[in-house]
Amino acid sequence: MSACHVYRFPMRDPDDMSGLADLLDQGKIAASDIKAVFCKTEGNGLNNDWTRHFVDRSVRATIAAHGGGDAETLRRKVLVLISGGSEGVVSPHMLVFAAAPAAGTELGLALGMEIREFAPGDFARRNHSIATAEMVRAAMKAAGAKDESQVGLVVVRAPADAAQGVTSPRVRAAVSLGVAQALGEIAGDIDEAAFLKDFSKFCRRVFVVARDDTTTQQVIVLANAPGGTKTLRIAAGPLRDPLDSPGVAAVLAKLGIDAAPQASPAASARIVASLSKGDPPGNGKIRGARHTMNSDSDIHSHRHGRSAYGAMIASVIGHSYCFVSGGAEHHGPENGGLVALIARADGSPA
Amino acid sequence: MSACHVYRFPMRDPDDMSGLADLLDQGKIAASDIKAVFCKTEGNGLNNDWTRHFVDRSVRATIAAHGGGDAETLRRKVLVLISGGSEGVVSPHMLVFAAAPAAGTELGLALGMEIREFAPGDFARRNHSIATAEMVRAAMKAAGAKDESQVGLVVVRAPADAAQGVTSPRVRAAVSLGVAQALGEIAGDIDEAAFLKDFSKFCRRVFVVARDDTTTQQVIVLANAPGGTKTLRIAAGPLRDPLDSPGVAAVLAKLGIDAAPQASPAASARIVASLSKGDPPGNGKIRGARHTMNSDSDIHSHRHGRSAYGAMIASVIGHSYCFVSGGAEHHGPENGGLVALIARADGSPA
Amino acid sequence: MSACHVYRFPMRDPDDMSGLADLLDQGKIAASDIKAVFCKTEGNGLNNDWTRHFVDRSVRATIAAHGGGDAETLRRKVLVLISGGSEGVVSPHMLVFAAAPAAGTELGLALGMEIREFAPGDFARRNHSIATAEMVRAAMKAAGAKDESQVGLVVVRAPADAAQGVTSPRVRAAVSLGVAQALGEIAGDIDEAAFLKDFSKFCRRVFVVARDDTTTQQVIVLANAPGGTKTLRIAAGPLRDPLDSPGVAAVLAKLGIDAAPQASPAASARIVASLSKGDPPGNGKIRGARHTMNSDSDIHSHRHGRSAYGAMIASVIGHSYCFVSGGAEHHGPENGGLVALIARADGSPA
Amino acid sequence: MSACHVYRFPMRDPDDMSGLADLLDQGKIAASDIKAVFCKTEGNGLNNDWTRHFVDRSVRATIAAHGGGDAETLRRKVLVLISGGSEGVVSPHMLVFAAAPAAGTELGLALGMEIREFAPGDFARRNHSIATAEMVRAAMKAAGAKDESQVGLVVVRAPADAAQGVTSPRVRAAVSLGVAQALGEIAGDIDEAAFLKDFSKFCRRVFVVARDDTTTQQVIVLANAPGGTKTLRIAAGPLRDPLDSPGVAAVLAKLGIDAAPQASPAASARIVASLSKGDPPGNGKIRGARHTMNSDSDIHSHRHGRSAYGAMIASVIGHSYCFVSGGAEHHGPENGGLVALIARADGSPA
Repeated sequence: MSACHVYRFPMRDPDDMSGLADLLDQGKIAASDIKAVFCKTEGNGLNNDWTRHFVDRSVRATIAAHGGGDAETLRRKVLVLISGGSEGVVSPHMLVFAAAPAAGTELGLALGMEIREFAPGDFARRNHSIATAEMVRAAMKAAGAKDESQVGLVVVRAPADAAQGVTSPRVRAAVSLGVAQALGEIAGDIDEAAFLKDFSKFCRRVFVVARDDTTTQQVIVLANAPGGTKTLRIAAGPLRDPLDSPGVAAVLAKLGIDAAPQASPAASARIVASLSKGDPPGNGKIRGARHTMNSDSDIHSHRHGRSAYGAMIASVIGHSYCFVSGGAEHHGPENGGLVALIARADGSPA
Repeated sequence: MSACHVYRFPMRDPDDMSGLADLLDQGKIAASDIKAVFCKTEGNGLNNDWTRHFVDRSVRATIAAHGGGDAETLRRKVLVLISGGSEGVVSPHMLVFAAAPAAGTELGLALGMEIREFAPGDFARRNHSIATAEMVRAAMKAAGAKDESQVGLVVVRAPADAAQGVTSPRVRAAVSLGVAQALGEIAGDIDEAAFLKDFSKFCRRVFVVARDDTTTQQVIVLANAPGGTKTLRIAAGPLRDPLDSPGVAAVLAKLGIDAAPQASPAASARIVASLSKGDPPGNGKIRGARHTMNSDSDIHSHRHGRSAYGAMIASVIGHSYCFVSGGAEHHGPENGGLVALIARADGSPA
Repeated sequence: MSACHVYRFPMRDPDDMSGLADLLDQGKIAASDIKAVFCKTEGNGLNNDWTRHFVDRSVRATIAAHGGGDAETLRRKVLVLISGGSEGVVSPHMLVFAAAPAAGTELGLALGMEIREFAPGDFARRNHSIATAEMVRAAMKAAGAKDESQVGLVVVRAPADAAQGVTSPRVRAAVSLGVAQALGEIAGDIDEAAFLKDFSKFCRRVFVVARDDTTTQQVIVLANAPGGTKTLRIAAGPLRDPLDSPGVAAVLAKLGIDAAPQASPAASARIVASLSKGDPPGNGKIRGARHTMNSDSDIHSHRHGRSAYGAMIASVIGHSYCFVSGGAEHHGPENGGLVALIARADGSPA
Repeated sequence: MSACHVYRFPMRDPDDMSGLADLLDQGKIAASDIKAVFCKTEGNGLNNDWTRHFVDRSVRATIAAHGGGDAETLRRKVLVLISGGSEGVVSPHMLVFAAAPAAGTELGLALGMEIREFAPGDFARRNHSIATAEMVRAAMKAAGAKDESQVGLVVVRAPADAAQGVTSPRVRAAVSLGVAQALGEIAGDIDEAAFLKDFSKFCRRVFVVARDDTTTQQVIVLANAPGGTKTLRIAAGPLRDPLDSPGVAAVLAKLGIDAAPQASPAASARIVASLSKGDPPGNGKIRGARHTMNSDSDIHSHRHGRSAYGAMIASVIGHSYCFVSGGAEHHGPENGGLVALIARADGSPA
């Protein structure tokens, strides 16, 4: 069982590893404690953007140089999630998730990780969902979560293979529904026919990225579990559309933070991480009003979507360290998405 | 003295004049009642976008075809303000401002208009500010506003001449400060040295667009004045930055609408118009966090800025008919902007 | 039988109708002589660009204002082809094709036009091809072309209906193959199975644009026919890829112009019109070298393609009035395209 | 004195180091032989593009891993020039310049390198020009060039410091004019007043990149000198504008290759490298025809310019491995640029 510490660092540029390096240099954590590093970077976040690869390499090189072992091996051991595109108010930043010994029985932020190899033929199939559900259960156990209700968010870096027709959207669908099943959010068997079709089935506590560079799937469960880091709590919830500030406020309320319409400066400072998924509504409308995010030939819909969700969430939490991500298939309700927030307890040190 | 009616129509595409045409066909108003038409359209809103010219022509042709007289003459008589760029959640729409006879002494939405020719040599000079202040005072009188406190927003379509070095930012500076003086928001003489330099001087109730196609300046004062349209009210206020949802909520509060964090569906439906100005902060930061809106080589900073302000405002007012506009020099505090909202009184018919 | 005059005007901006207006004002031609107006304009030429609609309206309004009758009726009578996107060196310009009485028996530029209504159910089907072939034969007759060898280029403005799944590429396929059959460039029956599949079937003298705004198809045959304008000649030929400067030179050679590598200034000045079709090769390669035009998330492949073809053609003909257009399905060889050039005879007045 | 070998490798993606790695693995050259590596990569090549940094790091890591010593030290020893933006037909590729022992007295491709530190206060000042001229003379000597006429091209990676107002254009101006003086292309003293002002002063054989990441300047002279690689020759020449295919043909002619309009396949295969500089003409015209490359709000002028020059050059040399670069201040005539080509002698092995 692992308690989980979370560190957030602003990034001056995509290659700014100073926060991570300092953390390791100062001995606050050991390289081997690091379970995940998320970076929200500049660049367009689309298929001609190599910022992602650049930063992925820099992160692993930095950990390796601080006693983390071989940079190549770290690919498998650490969930490195680089997400390009800091549109609008979104501020480039890094989140480091580090394991610590569990202590006591009080609830606090805990982390469990599970890693498995997948056969390309299984990608985005029913088996992928089923195996993902198993991984979630194992990671829950590793996190020390007593039951599904203690789970805050499940983060998955999943393998895709666009060259073989296994597209990222389909992988995200298979994985999200597997997580939803493991968390008891959907009932019954996984049916492939629902993938990218039946959006009434979705997960409220999942964040999947699909990547073509691997056959390894990494699953991390973040939970409020006995023995976790007492000063940190996680909560998540669905967003019905890109205007759903009440949805964000509802998640903040679970963390004891009031936003009417915005968290106070003191409360805002307690919000360590905001992880969200959401896309421009595919039906071309938001509450009946036409939007143009899917028909703008000059700006990709993903860039519009990240900007919109980022600005809305930031306007509620009071700062712009928002890890926004597109590709929200079966993540929250159709035409919507979800947000997870991690906050320090009131009065705990920054 | 003129009461003011405001009509809002969604636009299916930039050439969708159906709302305006129906309004005139059905005889709800006469063509000669129309004082202003604002359209928030698709396109990039930048200098290679001709959507603006296209829609400007369509609006005038529609009014002309409904008894409004010559389309060319309408340029001067009607303030046609086409603003390109419906980024993110922002929904393309049209706002029609029509004059009606003033009635009674109760406060309600009123409109006063003033039109003047300017000599190119005066554009963006101190004289421009001074003449603008005079125009505001005349328009206030036309609107029947008793004093500055009754003024909700001053909209100005001002002449610029980039070819002669009279840039739009400088025109907006000169005009904003002229309006600020007329409204008593700044004291003392207008000093050209403050233009685009001293951003501690600004106006809280102004919306200026500068256009290279004219030497005519049109000023419209929207006020809550005796005899105005009783069912409509206007309020405005500054926004400290693109995250300032509390600033939007404060304006809503003046209209009797609660947003914690968002106006209820019923209250949201009462909000007829949202007019805002704001740019990506020029210092590259929002509450200390770096943003990348000014260094993204693929998306213009204006497009980032409109998306950010639109998403934030929409998340408070509960719908996405947000008339967002960049070029906010001396409009609200430095690195911020302002918003004006027009709402129907509770219980008044849609 | 109609001789054909061609006028080319630079456009200072998309609304610059001065060339066309002067032509009519000066009485060089009558409004009723105008059979086609082509404009290569700014804007991105993609689906959020309304420059096209703006210019289309301006062209018709200008002709109408000069005795051309009702602007709406002109939609059917005149082939107005507005093509957005003047990327790279390409210079915005207008081409006016006007009919004149045929005279004598010497060969010269002649024009024949045919207009028909289509039922939406027939769009992009075999019937569309067959009817197009009939229209080409009728237009050839109208142009006075003795046989297929006298045909220089067939320009078609064809109806599409994307909302009903009749996409522009499919319409261009059906129409191109219909033209190819009429010109004897392909043998045998039209087979729908070849549309967008069998690119070994193609036409070498066709320029199709598909538009969602109409059910009318307009076909214009430009030919070197007896009685045509003696001082003008047209020639066309295939381009194997975006580097095919020898292909352009081969077309110039048919017009008696040498390009080794470029037409001389005097010869360049004789080249009145350059009409080309071409796309970035779909196989991702040009002569074995990878290109990135189809995977650049910031610039649309159509924009890359127009820039590439425009620069190559301009470098051969010696000026940048190149009417480049994407959407070259079955226009010239697979992964290539075609070009048609109209030039004045040596010594004829400009 | 060093003979110079040149290797060209296509790049499947920006991180594709396979060509370089194979070259070293197979022992064709030693890591210490490498004097320069140029990569033309994807990405937008603008200020939010980190492809450049990514590839720079990959190149040095690859050399380091093959016995090249410390990757950081290689920054100074090897001129690594990563140029982002493979617009239009331009194909991503790598050029490796390796030194070999000089042999004999026959003319052939030779390379001389000179490296110096600069004080930031000297960047882009007259001293920068003068020191650059000294470096060129030293590098000429190192290359074994008898006189200026043997110099083919001078490549400079120069330090800039935008944060201190020392912009890249100004650095390129200072350096180009220094090179021009050393090569005897301009007479008299260097006058700072000419920088970015008097474009009648320019160099015909220079390729400068300015970078903010260094205080080191690297100068490489490529010459046809006694003892150089007999099978390779270099030639360069000015381009009057982006249509100047005759300018490219003139350079090919110096290498014994005919292009009328295009090098034959066999001759094209002999052309190993094409290095060019050119921008969209700043006067907004090309041979009197308006272009829109500098007013397109969606595509940066650098991207338009690289696409245009790349397509034109490729259409003459017959392939698309064109190392195009913008920022051509004082590189060739005003509103134009220059091109240098390296070709194998007829009959020499590929």
